[in-house]
Amino acid sequence: MHDFEDQKSLAVAYIGGGSLNWATKLMGDIAQDGTLVVDMRLYDIDFAAAERNARLGRRIAEAGRGKPARYTAHERIEDALDGADVVVISILPGTLETMASDIALPERYGIRQSVGDTVGPGGFVRAMRSIPMLAEIAQSIRACCPDAYVCNLTNPMSALTGTLYAVFPGIKAWGECHEVTKLRHIVAWLANRKAGSVSYSFRDVEVNVLGINHFTFVDRAVVGGVDMLQDYLDFARTHRASGWRATPIDPDNEQERCFLDHNMVKFDLASRFGIAAAAGDRHLAEFVPQTWYLDRNEEFGFGLTPVDYRMRERDEKRRVAAELDAGAPLPPLDVSEEALVAEIKALAGGAPHVTNVNLPNRGQLSGFAEGIVVETNARFSAGGIQPLHSGRLPEALELIVKPHAERQTALVAAVLEGRRDDLFPLFLGDPLVAPLGPDKAQDLFGQMVAATAEFLPEALKRAG
Amino acid sequence: MHDFEDQKSLAVAYIGGGSLNWATKLMGDIAQDGTLVVDMRLYDIDFAAAERNARLGRRIAEAGRGKPARYTAHERIEDALDGADVVVISILPGTLETMASDIALPERYGIRQSVGDTVGPGGFVRAMRSIPMLAEIAQSIRACCPDAYVCNLTNPMSALTGTLYAVFPGIKAWGECHEVTKLRHIVAWLANRKAGSVSYSFRDVEVNVLGINHFTFVDRAVVGGVDMLQDYLDFARTHRASGWRATPIDPDNEQERCFLDHNMVKFDLASRFGIAAAAGDRHLAEFVPQTWYLDRNEEFGFGLTPVDYRMRERDEKRRVAAELDAGAPLPPLDVSEEALVAEIKALAGGAPHVTNVNLPNRGQLSGFAEGIVVETNARFSAGGIQPLHSGRLPEALELIVKPHAERQTALVAAVLEGRRDDLFPLFLGDPLVAPLGPDKAQDLFGQMVAATAEFLPEALKRAG
Amino acid sequence: MHDFEDQKSLAVAYIGGGSLNWATKLMGDIAQDGTLVVDMRLYDIDFAAAERNARLGRRIAEAGRGKPARYTAHERIEDALDGADVVVISILPGTLETMASDIALPERYGIRQSVGDTVGPGGFVRAMRSIPMLAEIAQSIRACCPDAYVCNLTNPMSALTGTLYAVFPGIKAWGECHEVTKLRHIVAWLANRKAGSVSYSFRDVEVNVLGINHFTFVDRAVVGGVDMLQDYLDFARTHRASGWRATPIDPDNEQERCFLDHNMVKFDLASRFGIAAAAGDRHLAEFVPQTWYLDRNEEFGFGLTPVDYRMRERDEKRRVAAELDAGAPLPPLDVSEEALVAEIKALAGGAPHVTNVNLPNRGQLSGFAEGIVVETNARFSAGGIQPLHSGRLPEALELIVKPHAERQTALVAAVLEGRRDDLFPLFLGDPLVAPLGPDKAQDLFGQMVAATAEFLPEALKRAG
Amino acid sequence: MHDFEDQKSLAVAYIGGGSLNWATKLMGDIAQDGTLVVDMRLYDIDFAAAERNARLGRRIAEAGRGKPARYTAHERIEDALDGADVVVISILPGTLETMASDIALPERYGIRQSVGDTVGPGGFVRAMRSIPMLAEIAQSIRACCPDAYVCNLTNPMSALTGTLYAVFPGIKAWGECHEVTKLRHIVAWLANRKAGSVSYSFRDVEVNVLGINHFTFVDRAVVGGVDMLQDYLDFARTHRASGWRATPIDPDNEQERCFLDHNMVKFDLASRFGIAAAAGDRHLAEFVPQTWYLDRNEEFGFGLTPVDYRMRERDEKRRVAAELDAGAPLPPLDVSEEALVAEIKALAGGAPHVTNVNLPNRGQLSGFAEGIVVETNARFSAGGIQPLHSGRLPEALELIVKPHAERQTALVAAVLEGRRDDLFPLFLGDPLVAPLGPDKAQDLFGQMVAATAEFLPEALKRAG
Repeated sequence: MHDFEDQKSLAVAYIGGGSLNWATKLMGDIAQDGTLVVDMRLYDIDFAAAERNARLGRRIAEAGRGKPARYTAHERIEDALDGADVVVISILPGTLETMASDIALPERYGIRQSVGDTVGPGGFVRAMRSIPMLAEIAQSIRACCPDAYVCNLTNPMSALTGTLYAVFPGIKAWGECHEVTKLRHIVAWLANRKAGSVSYSFRDVEVNVLGINHFTFVDRAVVGGVDMLQDYLDFARTHRASGWRATPIDPDNEQERCFLDHNMVKFDLASRFGIAAAAGDRHLAEFVPQTWYLDRNEEFGFGLTPVDYRMRERDEKRRVAAELDAGAPLPPLDVSEEALVAEIKALAGGAPHVTNVNLPNRGQLSGFAEGIVVETNARFSAGGIQPLHSGRLPEALELIVKPHAERQTALVAAVLEGRRDDLFPLFLGDPLVAPLGPDKAQDLFGQMVAATAEFLPEALKRAG
Repeated sequence: MHDFEDQKSLAVAYIGGGSLNWATKLMGDIAQDGTLVVDMRLYDIDFAAAERNARLGRRIAEAGRGKPARYTAHERIEDALDGADVVVISILPGTLETMASDIALPERYGIRQSVGDTVGPGGFVRAMRSIPMLAEIAQSIRACCPDAYVCNLTNPMSALTGTLYAVFPGIKAWGECHEVTKLRHIVAWLANRKAGSVSYSFRDVEVNVLGINHFTFVDRAVVGGVDMLQDYLDFARTHRASGWRATPIDPDNEQERCFLDHNMVKFDLASRFGIAAAAGDRHLAEFVPQTWYLDRNEEFGFGLTPVDYRMRERDEKRRVAAELDAGAPLPPLDVSEEALVAEIKALAGGAPHVTNVNLPNRGQLSGFAEGIVVETNARFSAGGIQPLHSGRLPEALELIVKPHAERQTALVAAVLEGRRDDLFPLFLGDPLVAPLGPDKAQDLFGQMVAATAEFLPEALKRAG
Repeated sequence: MHDFEDQKSLAVAYIGGGSLNWATKLMGDIAQDGTLVVDMRLYDIDFAAAERNARLGRRIAEAGRGKPARYTAHERIEDALDGADVVVISILPGTLETMASDIALPERYGIRQSVGDTVGPGGFVRAMRSIPMLAEIAQSIRACCPDAYVCNLTNPMSALTGTLYAVFPGIKAWGECHEVTKLRHIVAWLANRKAGSVSYSFRDVEVNVLGINHFTFVDRAVVGGVDMLQDYLDFARTHRASGWRATPIDPDNEQERCFLDHNMVKFDLASRFGIAAAAGDRHLAEFVPQTWYLDRNEEFGFGLTPVDYRMRERDEKRRVAAELDAGAPLPPLDVSEEALVAEIKALAGGAPHVTNVNLPNRGQLSGFAEGIVVETNARFSAGGIQPLHSGRLPEALELIVKPHAERQTALVAAVLEGRRDDLFPLFLGDPLVAPLGPDKAQDLFGQMVAATAEFLPEALKRAG
Repeated sequence: MHDFEDQKSLAVAYIGGGSLNWATKLMGDIAQDGTLVVDMRLYDIDFAAAERNARLGRRIAEAGRGKPARYTAHERIEDALDGADVVVISILPGTLETMASDIALPERYGIRQSVGDTVGPGGFVRAMRSIPMLAEIAQSIRACCPDAYVCNLTNPMSALTGTLYAVFPGIKAWGECHEVTKLRHIVAWLANRKAGSVSYSFRDVEVNVLGINHFTFVDRAVVGGVDMLQDYLDFARTHRASGWRATPIDPDNEQERCFLDHNMVKFDLASRFGIAAAAGDRHLAEFVPQTWYLDRNEEFGFGLTPVDYRMRERDEKRRVAAELDAGAPLPPLDVSEEALVAEIKALAGGAPHVTNVNLPNRGQLSGFAEGIVVETNARFSAGGIQPLHSGRLPEALELIVKPHAERQTALVAAVLEGRRDDLFPLFLGDPLVAPLGPDKAQDLFGQMVAATAEFLPEALKRAG
């Protein structure tokens, strides 16, 4: 490993730095990038995991393209944040076991959720327990590194990015999510088919993004100077009934089976509303009444919330990480599809980078009020993060998307202000919950709050 | 009858002047008022009905408190409108038979509507056929009497008041509806109970109104200088399960049976959202998923859409009108609970009058966009109609009310601009329709559009 | 005097209760009203003056129409505020001597001010020293009587009413000013002339008010059901060059000479902008470049800032008060033209009262941003204070009025946040200051800040 | 010249195609670019000039980097526009002689203008005569090529870009101006000085732009990943009194003498408001009272409106053009500093390009109302033109900039709607006009309207 001290490095604080998913992906991307000199401070409430990742990070950096990197683990969040240039937040609010109850309890009332981390009863309660955590992190950032750029990777994305800004309005934060990439892959495939050659990757597809996280839409998809939106809509209509995948499902791949996606929800929404839906089917399905897709998930070719799979996956990842930590050889390094390294480089003075991110609305999405967290394109450069004005959703669709965004905003405020009695009426308004009617919904809410009470602030423990 | 020509009269054009309901009520109120000298021009597509009402009006005026009045019937709308000081619009868009199909078709898909004239599939399609009618009336008003005050009494109230302003932005129109009166009666009853004497009538109850027509809320209800809201909310919680009526249902009164209301929806909503719902239960129930109330209407003590009763009632009223026209004695005159005469008098320079009306939002209801038709208090005076700033709905409730208002606004624009393809996605978003899912909803929409096609403009006949 | 304890009284805290002007006027109005039972708590930094007024108040109450009243003086503001139903704020920020320097220093730079208490260099610096005082009062109100209605009578009205809301957003405050009354008197005179009889007083003139305090406009002036605006505009054009007064100036009346007003500024503005200006000429003249009126005040028939007169007047009032306090007989009681008692009675459950007041914009004045303090009509009732939507100023006029309002808002924020360096750029933008150019304006600002430094918070003492 | 028909070309309609300035610059840039195949249709009310430019364009294209181009002149605007991909609008509204009166008449009243084409009395009247011209062009574009991208180069930029959108809201237009480049040159010079080497050109300076055309500000100026704003502000303060130029004035160069700029206005504004002013001093000086800079132009080192120079320059250019047309050799081709070719290429699918342009506000500039034309950065790409959210001006500066923008918006509306009487009150509000007072301002306005009456629509000829 090269001598770190000689170089001007970028101090990155990673909150949730013991993570087996995002953190290791970022380590690999940095190592492969070959331009960034990084001082990576890993903080995790599981300090041992942060230490393990620090060891792992050093090995990955050595295997990379030669830029020096420093990896340290920290027991106090302040030590990680102090003077940081960039903060990455990727935590699991609660445990997978808590998340299992986010799914299982609504199921008893007939509410089937495919993910349960964004909206619906699961997303709501998950927000209730994670908003106070993010609020605390935002306070620490204000105290330790108020000028740092802050990338939030944690779900529920809109609510938590909103929390950062609610607590510290001057924060330079954005919410990062890769779901739109799925649409860009399809469009690249279509463009290649049209060109008769493999000319384009998803990176060549520039989309205009409108909406909110996991319920995102695209009204332009330019490849090689040409807008492919109409091609996509035609394709969607053609394959609406049958579905379509670029590659067949591998029946032996449990992940593929669990996260099954035949794009049928995407295609159906596109056909109904004349605009491309840009997220995985499992996410999209949760924003509309469950009669549309969730109740018919097999027909629509997508899988439901495999929390047990996630638990097995977690255990498997832990096993692999332990082996690596014990000296097993590193797998070959690869570059992920994430935009985070490109964004950091742009902010640090490199080539500007345009991508979709979650930010409080400053006018970038017409029809939505100022301050509501929306997902549109933004431009990252040495001058900062500037959202691009992205236009407006078709009105009928806006009427479905906007109440979700406004509910998330209201939820963040109610949690931060400890307004316990205002929570249930918001919960009741979610389109997955509303059909239960007020009485059953109240029962369900009580049970869900009880199940996650250990993670709730005192004022909200009896919200149910 | 007194000599009309000697006096300065107020020219009132009544569009739908053959009506057996509103028109005769207005005639009676004017006759009883004893201050207004009215030149009433009745216009109706059923000219004979207008003529009959003109004859009836003259008799009522003679039986009244002595002010002269002139009643004329007109075959051309321009003749009625020319130089009018006030225009009243009270039409039936389509026929009761069309309205029956607004109810019957959705019922085949399991959608039970209690009224079907405001929102839900019935209200939507009713708006589609009535918007073009009101647009035509607005054009005539602009041409014939642009300075007239215009009172719309026709449902769907929000959509049609919005249509008047969309077509003629300078119109001095308001939408008038008496549903909030129902709450004022209850509060007066509570105040009398508290006082231990019959001291107050509904007219002594001043309410602060927020919301949209038929989905209206009240966060202050002042009687004798005291806000009775908390008393009302306590009463609502106490009687939520049992319901309550000031007077028992008369089992022999078909009207009471058909329009049954035990205030249980009002009380339930009040208990859930901490604010008083202020409209008949049958209206309120249509704005939320049908699992809440419509599916359980017997349990909640309210009746469903008796279109057949309305037909019988219409026939009965016609019979009575024919008898009167043939010389039968007039029933004793009474003063109705409507505010229209008080409003007209205030506009004409009498005592200012504050009441709830439907107007495009100019800031009177925070949280709703400019231009959306909302229902709040306004002050009528010789200076015109000025909405009072009324505050903001509780956020969870706003999230349920606002999409209805925005959908109505979008619907008006789509119909006026002939954007056929934009209609179904809006229809699909209504909370009574959405649970059907897109496929069935599309089938239903096609059938409903076909059933009312004769009343639709060419561009929309194939909207389904 | 009647036994006070037997009756339900209204607790009124008067901040600045040693005042010789507003406080005594209010005492008289209450005594004459004969319906309010008042527990008046007088607080003043000059405690002896508050005690003197308490004694005076008791005598006035006895001379009144028989309702009991209690008058007490308090040394601690908390004692006056504790449990108050109504708070009245009428203080002199600084001294008349300080105010003299607000006038004299700009005069050295050629800036002639007619009042110097609202805008211009004098109003700006007066705001700087009074905003912290009002901020402190707002904090005390939040602590002692958060539900009280709060009437601010202190200038600069817009800035100080804005301060109350900035510090305590939930405050139920309004800013009260009687300048619009001047226009109502003229319109009543015109209406009487037209009627050929003395039928109307200013109280019969209902005006629609738009603008900001002391730069207020009227686009409807209804008397007896008829809008007299066009009559007024015609009259204004006719008398624009000559001026007009209902009564001639009494050359022996120093007050009249000092506060000279021939309505020529009002008439000139009305002729230019097609809308009635509704404040004293001396106030109106300060909002536009001084070449318009201030430089030509004799030609336009109005007087300039007689601070020395105010000092003499103050001394004279003190002398009279001392005599009264020593037992001299009370002058005959009269009812003032102020609306405060009518407002208080309306809030306490009496007849609703509509009048013009200063409030943060909630939509009542189109074209102005939310939260900016504007002056329009509002309705006082037991339900609270509700602004009426008042429309929009003519665009050319809005362009002159709005920057003043925005500057006041920015000034309040800069003072409250102690942003010293942001003050001068705001000062420079005032139309009386701007023509000086940046260099001279900076000199002037430095001198004015120095002259009032004793009243400034530490952070702002070196703002100049 | 290459065979044009073989290639996919871009059809560019140039309105004002006989221009000797912008048109020839564009021809040269296209020829030098070497990638665009252009079908250039020149339209001019001086058809002979368009024909001459077509001949010239062909010669320039041949001398260029080899891409084929077609140049045609058209007598009817429809022929030029039909099917155009891009429209460029660069006209002279009226004549230089008219423009001379825009300057000379105000000068009689003591108003000295440095340019007179944007704001001030000259800019106002120029807008009055050019708005109807642009309205006509917008109508033609809607009829002939509604999907074309439209670049307006004509002043007054804000008013005319606003006119295009007011007449045809769906137009894909932007207003293009190069004044901000002047600041970028200075910042590049500073960066090179800091680096100790000539490393950067103005193209390497990325600025964040806020404001309106010719009164534009920059709060970030990034070069090589570093924000140089503070360096610039320090430099401005240091050279505020003395001024500074990268190169000395050449006393023999009449253009330099006439358009003299020592950056002293820029530096003074930067020092006052803490943000960089980004336009030529001669433009900036016109937006503030004339006592600031215009009255002291020699002291501030900038020149005043040399219309006579412009006339000589025009004649000289005509002479050169005639010589070229008669066969004189072309001067060596150079690439201008304009962004137009880069923008067109980006829109046509080339590399995205970010630059400052004038567009109706869709949220890109906080504090300004929706629809007002503002100047900020926008991103040009195959997906269209998307403004970047640019933040907000310092509040004291916003108070000076915004009324200009609002006045321009109001002016456009008043002219398009023929509201003659609303023009003078707007004229009176301009900070260069206001100090005259209403009477003299009215005289001046009458004279100016008379002087340009031949170019005004009938309804406005008597506006003065």
